Amino acid sequence: ARPRVGYYYTGKSPYEVVASKIRRYRVKDLHSRPVVVSVETTVYDALITLFLEDVGTLFVVREGGFLEGVVSRKDFLKLAFGGQDFRSVPVSVIMTRRPHVVTTTPEESVWEAARKIVIHEVDALPVVEPVASGQDLLVVGRFSKTNVTRLFVEMGEGR
Amino acid sequence: ARPRVGYYYTGKSPYEVVASKIRRYRVKDLHSRPVVVSVETTVYDALITLFLEDVGTLFVVREGGFLEGVVSRKDFLKLAFGGQDFRSVPVSVIMTRRPHVVTTTPEESVWEAARKIVIHEVDALPVVEPVASGQDLLVVGRFSKTNVTRLFVEMGEGR
Repeated sequence: ARPRVGYYYTGKSPYEVVASKIRRYRVKDLHSRPVVVSVETTVYDALITLFLEDVGTLFVVREGGFLEGVVSRKDFLKLAFGGQDFRSVPVSVIMTRRPHVVTTTPEESVWEAARKIVIHEVDALPVVEPVASGQDLLVVGRFSKTNVTRLFVEMGEGR
Repeated sequence: ARPRVGYYYTGKSPYEVVASKIRRYRVKDLHSRPVVVSVETTVYDALITLFLEDVGTLFVVREGGFLEGVVSRKDFLKLAFGGQDFRSVPVSVIMTRRPHVVTTTPEESVWEAARKIVIHEVDALPVVEPVASGQDLLVVGRFSKTNVTRLFVEMGEGR
């Protein structure tokens, strides 16, 4: 007998249906635009950017938009806590540097990127594309817990 | 004919299967323990708690564990940015106060709580239980984007 319209018969358990749907999304489907500052920027100016753009994480790049590091609210707070002057310190002093920065790519699954966020206990990942010339990574986006939370809400709406 | 074991036949589209599964989780199934400070705490001591507990949001309570406000990394950074002395200011000066604090409850769906996080642009919600005696809210947990991200990762594993 043919199933009625709307019926559904795949041999998968509900858990598998959910898992396979979750794993189908790609980072490129939902990442945000990156907010970047130059390695020469002072902590003070970087903090202004953080507030104006209202993000929790900045990506630090050199000329051409290539990733050098990542700086988070927590890094800024550590400096403030130590009583250091924001104006005299370049952002490169407080950032996490490559190769210690965890990254994702546009083609990676959202599930895999979310796993990296959980495992490495970070709020956001730079979305990068390798450049033909070698080790350089071009920053093309920002993928965060906010993107995952928004997707979760949309999926709960049946979209 | 009976479906084979593992088969599945409910009249729901895959989107509906995912949506109904997502909406079934309750906040009490996965929230974290709350990290709280007293309203009399100085910003300096609150910041120490923030670092020691490694959370992004503290809940500010009065005696008995009743919610008075919420303070986030962003609130601390604003103060640091203004150059104010951390030691002299009580945390109540920089916190978001009730009734402006968005809350959730143990019985609320994770989906609804995640929606509140997205709509109100916050990182975490205090999980509260109303107290018989009136307007007071007892803080019993912390629900954040991290909880949503962890659940998303687990669901993608087919659990």
